[in-house]
Amino acid sequence: MNGKLIPLVMFGLLAGVAAAAATPVHWQALPTTAPAPADNPTTPAKVQLGKMLFFDPRLSSTGTVSCFSCHNVMEGGDDHRPVSIGVEAQRGGRNAPTVWNAAFLSVQFWDGRAATLEDQAKGPPANPIEMGMKNLRMVIERIRRIPGYAPYFHRAFGPGDVITMDNTAKAIAAYERTLITPGSAYDRYVQGDHSALTPQQVRGMNDFAAVGCAGCHQGANFSGPPLPVGTGFFVKFPIYTDNPYVKKYDLMADLGRYEVTHRDADKHMWRVPGLRNLVYTAPYLHNGSVKSLPEAVRVMAATQLNRTLSPAQVRDIVAFLTSLTGPFPVQTMPRLPPTPGNLLSR
Amino acid sequence: MNGKLIPLVMFGLLAGVAAAAATPVHWQALPTTAPAPADNPTTPAKVQLGKMLFFDPRLSSTGTVSCFSCHNVMEGGDDHRPVSIGVEAQRGGRNAPTVWNAAFLSVQFWDGRAATLEDQAKGPPANPIEMGMKNLRMVIERIRRIPGYAPYFHRAFGPGDVITMDNTAKAIAAYERTLITPGSAYDRYVQGDHSALTPQQVRGMNDFAAVGCAGCHQGANFSGPPLPVGTGFFVKFPIYTDNPYVKKYDLMADLGRYEVTHRDADKHMWRVPGLRNLVYTAPYLHNGSVKSLPEAVRVMAATQLNRTLSPAQVRDIVAFLTSLTGPFPVQTMPRLPPTPGNLLSR
Repeated sequence: MNGKLIPLVMFGLLAGVAAAAATPVHWQALPTTAPAPADNPTTPAKVQLGKMLFFDPRLSSTGTVSCFSCHNVMEGGDDHRPVSIGVEAQRGGRNAPTVWNAAFLSVQFWDGRAATLEDQAKGPPANPIEMGMKNLRMVIERIRRIPGYAPYFHRAFGPGDVITMDNTAKAIAAYERTLITPGSAYDRYVQGDHSALTPQQVRGMNDFAAVGCAGCHQGANFSGPPLPVGTGFFVKFPIYTDNPYVKKYDLMADLGRYEVTHRDADKHMWRVPGLRNLVYTAPYLHNGSVKSLPEAVRVMAATQLNRTLSPAQVRDIVAFLTSLTGPFPVQTMPRLPPTPGNLLSR
Repeated sequence: MNGKLIPLVMFGLLAGVAAAAATPVHWQALPTTAPAPADNPTTPAKVQLGKMLFFDPRLSSTGTVSCFSCHNVMEGGDDHRPVSIGVEAQRGGRNAPTVWNAAFLSVQFWDGRAATLEDQAKGPPANPIEMGMKNLRMVIERIRRIPGYAPYFHRAFGPGDVITMDNTAKAIAAYERTLITPGSAYDRYVQGDHSALTPQQVRGMNDFAAVGCAGCHQGANFSGPPLPVGTGFFVKFPIYTDNPYVKKYDLMADLGRYEVTHRDADKHMWRVPGLRNLVYTAPYLHNGSVKSLPEAVRVMAATQLNRTLSPAQVRDIVAFLTSLTGPFPVQTMPRLPPTPGNLLSR
C-alpha cells in the first residue's frame, strides 16, 4: 500500500541534479490512454459508475463533500484553495493534488501513502476531516441504501454481492484513468508540430532542461521516470535551505513522507508532482503557500537547484509550463440515483 | 422584488379546496421551453456563462459552495438533506427547493421573497450562512479577479463594463431556464399517449383530482395556476392542525412568508411547490422533516384537506406522482477559468 523507495533512483537524482544540464532530456508526449492494473481493466461501465461515485456527495457523512469537491474536474482537478475544506468546515493539512493525470503517477498523495488510484480512493471517504464517514463499511452501507446504484454496480462488476468498497474504489479509479490531458501544445511540439510552441516557450523548454528542472520533473507527466506502480519517485524538498523562501513559505514545517513511515531518511521527502495544467492549479506546493507560477519557479530553483534565475529565464520557463495545459476532455454530467429521505440527518 | 399576493386567488383557493373534487382538472403538459423576461431573453452565450457561474464555488467566501452545492442538477436539483449546509458548516433554516422547473414558478424561495430567478440568484451568494460573501459587490470583485470570465461576459452581454451582479444573475437565470423536465410519462399521457401511465398511475391521477390535491397543485408544474411573474401562489400550511402530523413534524415553528412581510395574514403562508421529480427530492416539506413520499401524501391530505386517505389511495397517488419524473436533459460539464493563486485564503 505504501510507496516503495528505490534507492538507486534517489541516488541518481540527488547526485544528478547538477549534472542534468549536460544530459539530453528525453521529451515525451503524454500517452492517449492511461495504464490500468491487470485486475481493474478500464471499461465503459466502470467509468460510468465511477463518474457517478466521484460526483456523489452522499459518500460523505454530511452528504456535502464528494471527490469532486476538492478535485474539481471542471477546472484544474484541485480546489484552488491553499488547503482543502472537508465536512464540518474542517481544514486539511495539505494542498489538494490535481486528479488530472494522476493516473500516470506511480504512487498517490503528496507522501505516496497509496500505491494506486484504487488505494487512494479509499482514503478520503473515511478520513475524519475530509468526507468524515466513520469507516469504509459505513460508506458501503450508504451506497447500498441508494437502490439506484445496484444496476450500475452489476453492469460494471457482474452479478452477486458486488457493492463493495473494493469495487467502489475500482470504479472511481477507472473513471480517474479517463481524466488525462494528452494533446497539449507541448505534446504536439514533441510529436513534430514545431509551430505548436512559441519561440519563448521553446527557449523556456531549453532553460527548463539546462537549469536542471528536468532532473526531477522528467517523463511524459513531468513527475519522474516511469516506475512500477507503487514505486514512488520521492525527492527531498527543500534540499537547499539557505534562501529566504524556506522561512517565507514555511517549507520545513511538514515532514512529508516521514509522517507515514517515521523513518528519519524520509523527513522532508515528497513525491515529485507532475507539472501539467499548472495554469489551473494555483496556489502551489504541498502547503499551497506560493501564489503565482513565476514565484513557484523561483522557489524551486532556489530550494532544489541552489540557483537564482534571471527574470527572463523565469518568464521563459513559465511560458513553457503554460504549454503543458489541457486539452480537457468534454464530459457529460453523470445522473445520480435518488436518495431515500432518511439517508441524511440535520 | 417580493412576491405579490393576489387576494382573489387566495380566496378561490381557500374556499375552493373542498370543492376542487367537483371541478374537472385541466391537466397540462409542461412546455418544452421556459418563459423568459423581456429584458433577459435566453441565449446560448448566456446559458453557457450561467452554467459556469452556477457550478463555480469561487462565488462563495471559502471557495467551496456553489449554486450546484445545494441544487444538485446531477440529481433532484436539491441536496437531499433536511436543511442545507453553507460555508463554515452553517445549517440553513429550510429545505433547499429544487432548481428543476423553478423557471415555471411565479415567485422564488419558499416564502416567495424573490420575484424572479434573476432576483433569486442574488440571494445565496451574500447570505452569511449560505455562500457567505460580505455583499454582492464582493461577489463581482471575485469574478473580476478571474480573468478568464471576461470573454464569456462579453459574448453574453456585449462590450463595456458588463461584469456586474445584474448580468451574473441574468446568466445564471438563463441557465436555470434550461433546467426543465418536459416529456415525463405524465406529459406524454396528457398529450395523448395513453400507454404512458400504468392503470395504477391513472387511478392515482384521478384520486389526486378527486381528493382535492389539484386544488393547489394545479397547472403544468403542479405549483399553481399561471400567474404574472412576481405574483406568488401562496397557501396556508398547515390549514388543519388537529392531527398528529403537526406536532410530529414541527409544522408550526416556521412562520413562512410572515418572516418576510411581518404581516399577520402571512403567518404560515407558503408558496405552493411544484410536484415534479419528487422521487428525487426527499426529504420533503419546507423543513425537510418528512422522509418518504407516501408519508408526505398522508401529511398533506390531513393538514390541507382534513382527510385520511386509505393505504390504496396513498399508493396510487404516489404511483401517479412518480410519473412526473424527468426526463433530465443530458448536460455537458462547464469548463471553469483558472484561479489566480491569491484568490482564497486558508
